[in-house]
Amino acid sequence: MAYKITVIPGDGIGKEITDSAVEVLKKADEKFSLGLSFAYHDAGGTAYDKFGTPLPQETIDACKESDAVLFGAVGGDKWDNVDPALRPEKAILGLRKNLDLYANLRPVKVADALVDYSPLKPELVRGVDLVIVRELVGGIYFGDKCESEQHNGAERAWDLENYSVPEVERIAKLAFETAKLRRGKVTSVDKANVLATSRLWRRTVAKTAEGYKDVELNNLYVDNCAMQLAIRPTQFDVIVTGNLFGDILSDEAAVVGGSIGMMPSASIGTCTSLYEPIHGSAPDIAGKGIANPMGTILSAAMLLRYSLHEEQAAKAIENAVDKALADGYRTPDLWKEGFSKANTEEITRVICERI
Amino acid sequence: MAYKITVIPGDGIGKEITDSAVEVLKKADEKFSLGLSFAYHDAGGTAYDKFGTPLPQETIDACKESDAVLFGAVGGDKWDNVDPALRPEKAILGLRKNLDLYANLRPVKVADALVDYSPLKPELVRGVDLVIVRELVGGIYFGDKCESEQHNGAERAWDLENYSVPEVERIAKLAFETAKLRRGKVTSVDKANVLATSRLWRRTVAKTAEGYKDVELNNLYVDNCAMQLAIRPTQFDVIVTGNLFGDILSDEAAVVGGSIGMMPSASIGTCTSLYEPIHGSAPDIAGKGIANPMGTILSAAMLLRYSLHEEQAAKAIENAVDKALADGYRTPDLWKEGFSKANTEEITRVICERI
Ligand SMILES: CC(C)[C@H](C(=O)O)[C@@H](O)C(=O)O
Ligand SMILES: CC(C)[C@H](C(=O)O)[C@@H](O)C(=O)O
Repeated sequence: MAYKITVIPGDGIGKEITDSAVEVLKKADEKFSLGLSFAYHDAGGTAYDKFGTPLPQETIDACKESDAVLFGAVGGDKWDNVDPALRPEKAILGLRKNLDLYANLRPVKVADALVDYSPLKPELVRGVDLVIVRELVGGIYFGDKCESEQHNGAERAWDLENYSVPEVERIAKLAFETAKLRRGKVTSVDKANVLATSRLWRRTVAKTAEGYKDVELNNLYVDNCAMQLAIRPTQFDVIVTGNLFGDILSDEAAVVGGSIGMMPSASIGTCTSLYEPIHGSAPDIAGKGIANPMGTILSAAMLLRYSLHEEQAAKAIENAVDKALADGYRTPDLWKEGFSKANTEEITRVICERI
Repeated sequence: MAYKITVIPGDGIGKEITDSAVEVLKKADEKFSLGLSFAYHDAGGTAYDKFGTPLPQETIDACKESDAVLFGAVGGDKWDNVDPALRPEKAILGLRKNLDLYANLRPVKVADALVDYSPLKPELVRGVDLVIVRELVGGIYFGDKCESEQHNGAERAWDLENYSVPEVERIAKLAFETAKLRRGKVTSVDKANVLATSRLWRRTVAKTAEGYKDVELNNLYVDNCAMQLAIRPTQFDVIVTGNLFGDILSDEAAVVGGSIGMMPSASIGTCTSLYEPIHGSAPDIAGKGIANPMGTILSAAMLLRYSLHEEQAAKAIENAVDKALADGYRTPDLWKEGFSKANTEEITRVICERI
């Protein structure tokens, strides 16, 4: 076997959607002789229930030793009253830090068949093809913090937003490299009119840009970017930004794309990378076999592209998803009068048939 | 004279739009015998050119001694190379701090006549009527910051996000009071799954809510709120949030509203309050007489309501604007085939006639 893939189903619909994506990967393996092997590990609430921690060391080690990680989703009301340090989402933050997953790539590309699903008018959404490159292991997420202290006679809490030059350089380089393979345009998003961290960010990105003369760089304040994503999303190619702004803008951009259930993501690390749909664990529909697995399937395609450099197989999966949609198949979250309703198992089969 | 209003036209189209709003206020004064007097002061680039500072002490003093401040807009490329500490936007941040303008209210209400102007589908926008209550003098905007230091062998910059219990209590109270006069629903927005400051924010808002049993409180993570504003904006009544999240979300919400040129704002202070449109100084169209003054006129209506408690006059102005739109008048930024184009002077007259 050439490639070891760690699969982390997680909680809620995590099992169903990763099962589906693994089936699609196996079909691609048959066709393109990739030599994939899969090993399953726990994280999130499920891991907490079994081992008392949302992120067992064993899972971290398995990820480190594999060529790529396919992740489902974690979380659920069930663990709402668990000690905050042991909540399911700590598994995500812990994996990011332990695997040094420094860049989150979120492509937003609207399939022609799904243009009508966006809350935005179809004429604004048609042709959107952007990718958000979010810094994922720095910034205010991982800065020092204080839950409570006395300060000037009152109780306060604080978090330190901070970036170093090497941290910004690393993510900026990835953004420029990404843009070179696309339409050659990078928009760097910050709040340099207010934040010192943003000013360091902006000057470091500008410096990095000197090595990429063929890529066009412009800067946007985060408030303006939040507007522009809704006004004219087709203007963007690659958006690069810090951890917190990236969290907000990538979710806004996903909505513009129309159907959260369709959106994949890649978290690029220094030794291995992790791929997951952007939607959550949807405990309310877990186990019913009706979850939309396409975000996970498209994440699996990104896995083939970025971690295994199997572009042909990646493209085959993406085309199969497009074809299934164009042929009128819709999972329950997307179903409308006039289309063929397909549950998780059915859409998986329909996609496999088209690879 | 009963009421002293300080007018700060600022830069770019600031003069045209405040002239227009003052004319409308004078018309309301005639009709409702309010007893308004106006005094003009400088801020922004214009002040920098005259006095070498974007915010002369004299302007601050005048604001403090008046019943309310009507503000146009500041900024422009002309001052791009000025020392950052003296840039036009420092006037805004300085006024906020000096006048303790702790709450920014941004209503987003879509006039029936303008439903089609939103990038969102009309059926999602019809009936939107929300207000964002943004904390305006705290948080990461005014926390300690460091432009550059050596840390673990690299250059880094940082900003301190922080909130104290009294700061959160003050803004939360205003949000609950605002909701009581509206549909009784407050959505508090934070990132409590990651930030310590957000956890203090969330528990303080919950505590404050105990005094408002008739108001419903729910919490939303900022990334989810950025999605929900685009998916179903009608779900919101009052949104309360910190300075940075408020900056981003209020601009996103404004876009949902459709026409930035129409959006007013109020910045509530402890001694006096300031009213301004949310759009910028638009240097490219300054002096041409084509700017849309309606955002400023609606800000003037908020001034009458919140600072002078002249509800009847406020309502008369708002109705006159609605009427002008319903009668088919459109400023150039909103003009479409089939409507009557009105420049700044004309729309002002049309609105005055309808008061
Ligand atoms: C679960 C949460 C900590 C996480 C984040 O804020 O990064 C999520 O919102 C995301 O964007 O992946
Ligand atoms: C000009 C800038 C400092 C300001 C802010 O970020 O608060 C502006 O974006 C606003 O929202 O009023």
